[in-house]
Amino acid sequence: MNWALTLDLLGTFFFAISGSLLAAQRGYDIVGSLLLGSLTGLGGGVIRDLIIGVPPTAFAEPVHLAAPVAAAVLVFFLASGVERYSRPLLIFDAGGLALFCTTGTVKALEAGMNPVAAMLLGVTTGVGGGLLRDVVANRDPQLFNSSDLYAVPAFLGAAIVAGVWFTALPNVVTVFVAAIVVFVFRVLSLHFRWRIPHAKGQPKMGRASE
Amino acid sequence: MNWALTLDLLGTFFFAISGSLLAAQRGYDIVGSLLLGSLTGLGGGVIRDLIIGVPPTAFAEPVHLAAPVAAAVLVFFLASGVERYSRPLLIFDAGGLALFCTTGTVKALEAGMNPVAAMLLGVTTGVGGGLLRDVVANRDPQLFNSSDLYAVPAFLGAAIVAGVWFTALPNVVTVFVAAIVVFVFRVLSLHFRWRIPHAKGQPKMGRASE
Amino acid sequence: MNWALTLDLLGTFFFAISGSLLAAQRGYDIVGSLLLGSLTGLGGGVIRDLIIGVPPTAFAEPVHLAAPVAAAVLVFFLASGVERYSRPLLIFDAGGLALFCTTGTVKALEAGMNPVAAMLLGVTTGVGGGLLRDVVANRDPQLFNSSDLYAVPAFLGAAIVAGVWFTALPNVVTVFVAAIVVFVFRVLSLHFRWRIPHAKGQPKMGRASE
Repeated sequence: MNWALTLDLLGTFFFAISGSLLAAQRGYDIVGSLLLGSLTGLGGGVIRDLIIGVPPTAFAEPVHLAAPVAAAVLVFFLASGVERYSRPLLIFDAGGLALFCTTGTVKALEAGMNPVAAMLLGVTTGVGGGLLRDVVANRDPQLFNSSDLYAVPAFLGAAIVAGVWFTALPNVVTVFVAAIVVFVFRVLSLHFRWRIPHAKGQPKMGRASE
Repeated sequence: MNWALTLDLLGTFFFAISGSLLAAQRGYDIVGSLLLGSLTGLGGGVIRDLIIGVPPTAFAEPVHLAAPVAAAVLVFFLASGVERYSRPLLIFDAGGLALFCTTGTVKALEAGMNPVAAMLLGVTTGVGGGLLRDVVANRDPQLFNSSDLYAVPAFLGAAIVAGVWFTALPNVVTVFVAAIVVFVFRVLSLHFRWRIPHAKGQPKMGRASE
Repeated sequence: MNWALTLDLLGTFFFAISGSLLAAQRGYDIVGSLLLGSLTGLGGGVIRDLIIGVPPTAFAEPVHLAAPVAAAVLVFFLASGVERYSRPLLIFDAGGLALFCTTGTVKALEAGMNPVAAMLLGVTTGVGGGLLRDVVANRDPQLFNSSDLYAVPAFLGAAIVAGVWFTALPNVVTVFVAAIVVFVFRVLSLHFRWRIPHAKGQPKMGRASE
């Protein structure tokens, strides 16, 4: 098993845990937990592969399905009461984000994309699964929650990987270090509620009409 | 007209009816009814074809557009008051699910996918249109409603078709029988409110924070 | 720079402005504004290119990313208070709709699609970005708002372009005139609240159960 596949499976597993935890919070049954975990874990990668133009690995390599199955089983048996806490969901989501924004950039560069497009695709891969999860579960996406930073660490991780590409081939060490940076950045932003400026005007979540 | 196309059109028509009925419930106009019906009827197949890597049949074979048009017209002229009842929507949705999870698996197998991936793609095709319908109409997806079974019959239908693939080529009889099994299973689960275990903890639809 | 790319960039910019304005209304930060603008501006085109089967231009030609960046910066610095008004969002959305439904039809015809499929893909391209914007921001899609016309002008624009295809190659004049027709039609429908018949029965947005 090569390192790219290992990191991909780990990212899928982390995101799938976040999906299954949200399913538990929402009172979905075990099949709903498996489905939301699968969508979260595999969704970003499917979008990535469709845009690159290769057969989605989630289908081409069925080993990817083991990750959401393991996640759903784990959450089902171990998560007694854990769904009352939102922190585990956020931590696993941060792990998936860190791995997918970096490995997504690598896959795009390997497919011959220019570095700017590769960065964009890395960010899309990183935020895609969580966005699908939140949209399908009918809640305001984590991605747009302005009380912490979500896309900024993903941009940073994708930029590190794309930057290294100019000097050397990204390898397991590069990607792993970049992923750690993203993860730590994201968790610190959650803990300290780092923010960035809002567009001027109204505060939060208001809806206005003329 | 071959049988695969016939079943595909029938599934598209059933799902389109469900979409147009939801549109009527929501007070959309006839164009909104046509659009929601089209998205529901054609959405699962477009996802299926993009993942397989062939041109989406909804666009390659415009005859597919006849199904949502017929569905929107039917619902418009015949549905006086029917939108007050959720049962017709559920029955037509079950018909679409039954046909798409089985024919989706066949298409995936014919495209050379391994049986596990073909099953997954069959389930994705079956639940995809209804999920798009519910997400776009901004309601909690039927797929995750834990008071009945939705994905389980789809898995069963896809598994029957993939299983037969090992012994013989799935033909119209195989697919039709599998679809009937899915449909009956789904309708019985609705009628008797069959359930499967929840992840432990909170009851339904609650949202929690730390 | 050819005219097709120019119109494409302009449409992307208009849609991106509408996404960034919605982000401002919702209180998203500048990164959320950039992301929602990008999804709105680039989403329809990515769907179009995936269905046609070519690499999405948003990734193949990074110049497309300039449009949402410019839109997010503009909204951030100039939009003080503008997010209290829904009209600018609707006007820019109409501009994006007008350009994308016409250029989407051209791209589909150039890719060898039959005229009916090309019309459908033009409409899909036109309404896709705004639908993604509304779904991701968790609000009832503009597309289904039955107090004005949204898809009808898009169908008209796509039909004009596909009709001209039979007599001559659509060129910049054809597409531009068709886009103007769509834009004016859409704005008039907003101003005069043109409507089309509803499916019989209940009024608006009600949800019913048996």
